Amino acid sequence: MPLGDGIHEKIITWQAPPLKFGVGATEEIGHELTRAGLRSVLLVTDPTLARSGLPAQVAKLIEQEGVAVTLFDRAQVEPTDTGCAEAARELASVEVDGYVALGGGSSIDTAKMLNLLGSHPGSTVHDYLNKPVGAGRAIPGPLKPLVAVPTTAGSGSECTAMVALGVTGLRVKTGISDPYLRPSLALVDPANTLTLPAEVTAASGYDVLTHACESYTARPYDRRPPFGSPADRPLYIGANPISDIWAERALELVGRHLRRAVLNPHDLEARTAMSQAASFAGMGFGNAGTHIPHACAYPIAGLVREYRPAGYDVSHPMVPHGAAVVATAAAAFAFTYPTAPERHLRAAELLGANLRGITVANGADVLPATLLSLVADTGGPTGTAAFGYTRKDVPDLVEGALKQQRLLVCCPRDVTARDLRNVLTAALAG
Amino acid sequence: MPLGDGIHEKIITWQAPPLKFGVGATEEIGHELTRAGLRSVLLVTDPTLARSGLPAQVAKLIEQEGVAVTLFDRAQVEPTDTGCAEAARELASVEVDGYVALGGGSSIDTAKMLNLLGSHPGSTVHDYLNKPVGAGRAIPGPLKPLVAVPTTAGSGSECTAMVALGVTGLRVKTGISDPYLRPSLALVDPANTLTLPAEVTAASGYDVLTHACESYTARPYDRRPPFGSPADRPLYIGANPISDIWAERALELVGRHLRRAVLNPHDLEARTAMSQAASFAGMGFGNAGTHIPHACAYPIAGLVREYRPAGYDVSHPMVPHGAAVVATAAAAFAFTYPTAPERHLRAAELLGANLRGITVANGADVLPATLLSLVADTGGPTGTAAFGYTRKDVPDLVEGALKQQRLLVCCPRDVTARDLRNVLTAALAG
Repeated sequence: MPLGDGIHEKIITWQAPPLKFGVGATEEIGHELTRAGLRSVLLVTDPTLARSGLPAQVAKLIEQEGVAVTLFDRAQVEPTDTGCAEAARELASVEVDGYVALGGGSSIDTAKMLNLLGSHPGSTVHDYLNKPVGAGRAIPGPLKPLVAVPTTAGSGSECTAMVALGVTGLRVKTGISDPYLRPSLALVDPANTLTLPAEVTAASGYDVLTHACESYTARPYDRRPPFGSPADRPLYIGANPISDIWAERALELVGRHLRRAVLNPHDLEARTAMSQAASFAGMGFGNAGTHIPHACAYPIAGLVREYRPAGYDVSHPMVPHGAAVVATAAAAFAFTYPTAPERHLRAAELLGANLRGITVANGADVLPATLLSLVADTGGPTGTAAFGYTRKDVPDLVEGALKQQRLLVCCPRDVTARDLRNVLTAALAG
Repeated sequence: MPLGDGIHEKIITWQAPPLKFGVGATEEIGHELTRAGLRSVLLVTDPTLARSGLPAQVAKLIEQEGVAVTLFDRAQVEPTDTGCAEAARELASVEVDGYVALGGGSSIDTAKMLNLLGSHPGSTVHDYLNKPVGAGRAIPGPLKPLVAVPTTAGSGSECTAMVALGVTGLRVKTGISDPYLRPSLALVDPANTLTLPAEVTAASGYDVLTHACESYTARPYDRRPPFGSPADRPLYIGANPISDIWAERALELVGRHLRRAVLNPHDLEARTAMSQAASFAGMGFGNAGTHIPHACAYPIAGLVREYRPAGYDVSHPMVPHGAAVVATAAAAFAFTYPTAPERHLRAAELLGANLRGITVANGADVLPATLLSLVADTGGPTGTAAFGYTRKDVPDLVEGALKQQRLLVCCPRDVTARDLRNVLTAALAG
């Protein structure tokens, strides 16, 4: 084994927030905030959820415990740099000592950004965005406590130390990764996902699915040169024995429960399993990383022209993040298969594939086919043509994906522009 | 499923420290302490380890980064209330802003106690010990940062929020469980276990083995009445989907690697796997709990007369914790088998048992036999007779075990004195 030879990296770093999980957990939000010593919080949510009444109920639960609530209910679906900056300016005079995020990944990421800008006033979004889009600065110190209450089973943002942001004007998405961004508590209540439309359930589930598949097949942490110093080691270290544990369980849960949760939104057992899968995948990819499907998803979302997804309440063209990531997954995993056939086959098996008669030599199509079947059964996009993309768009998509070097370094093999062109061409039709 | 019905408990709580794992991780101790903003630490270790020179090396690594070190190298093997109180008195004038524990569970638990008493001066060990032995008070607030660097693959104390203490005079052991006791970082370097004698490797491994088996078979979190309020929910909630993940992986690693680590102490791959298994089991049982073997281990350790274990450098009769827990494991799991046959069989399978031809009806002996074979192959005690106990001691052992209600409530079936008598009688011979 390559450990300890001075030639390879050999250290695993891993961190996760405390987790409170279960039907009814939302009712304990006030207890958790007072236990953390908080007296006032900003409750961050989105307009659609606000109309459902859930944020008002949560605000009441918090206020009952003597904690003051300021409501911000205009988190954008797929947040942007300028949207977050504007919200932060608007809220500059609001003094709180903690944050509650209630919603999908978009609301949680918005809350992380508001916490960042509120805890370190004077800094800008641009300071923290990855190079070359932003200045790529490290966050200078701890943020205020943030309790994340997801209402989708998708992003895993309740567990991770990252934010995904669209960059206005550039039509790209990028991310900020920093240990200080991790929520101080993930409070996960599957009952909060019961009212999600089938399309949102499906797209969120695809995000879980790809988080788990990508982190499981990422370049292993110990098959890289050592980092010069511990400070150089990134948040995303690659596949490792801890992220593997979470990824494997997430795949098993998704394989057994995603179809059920999409096809019968009131299947609480399936909802519970998918909520677990989302957080578990977050516990895994949050330190291992993702690779090609997530790198491609950023331009797929950024360059969209006309597509408006069913089930989402948006006034502009938009590709849901989970739909964007899954659309290239089959093609991406066909490309990465030779780096670790056993892992690709094991992932397929955990998702429900039958491996009888399959060997390393004839198994390249098993994971792609398993993913496509799961997506087809749940009404999702089996290729990027579903969003209106054609062969003519491939060069622009390739260019956007190449900008995501932070993610592409986690691919188990080196990725050239030609490789991405092949993947994105194959992914048009799925 | 019983979730959300108002009749059963339905919330899972789980927490783990950040983890840094790998051969050579020890070299990053200084970086971690400065990153946490610490300027001075108390380094807690035991006399045997001090003689090995490792603590001096670690102190040097810390001082190189500009952090001052005060060395306390007299942590007791199997620490006691009076020993910790005396050490705290002696160190009362030492001002530090953090702690480093270097050693087995005993040193880590001692460091936790010194941190507790140092962070909350004026309080006593007795304040925090479980009732009826102590006053059972909650810890009033956060402790100082503690980085735990285990040198055995055993207790998992680097991950857990508990301390096990002998109570002088009463000849019993008891525990303190409180979220504030959890280390702020688990820094796990398998290379630090390479010099452990085979007997210590084996006993530490039995602790891992029983942590995983006990938490995996503990009374499930959702087959209990609901707690009146979130504040009433204990640290140990019973078996749950998160602790299961860790327990299963720990069992698999122990099954494949414990024999190798004991029989060839320089098998670094096996050492690495056992270090993972110890921390993983800690991540699991640390929120799920343990039951009969751990409850019985306290009087087995407390009432010992003459036994002095090979491989341990002690001047008084003593049963290593891992040996004490495993000595009743086979009998305990025969007793709990009917509550969840599938889980007992799955645990055995993960440890390497062949389940062909085994059904629920004929499988009661499989896990006990698998455990006994693993212990026999590694030179361990297959029964309490090995420590000098006879039938005459059973009533005293039963009485001591009955005091561990904090643990016995996690048993998947109710446990009477008669049940414990049967288990402890069967466990004499293994």
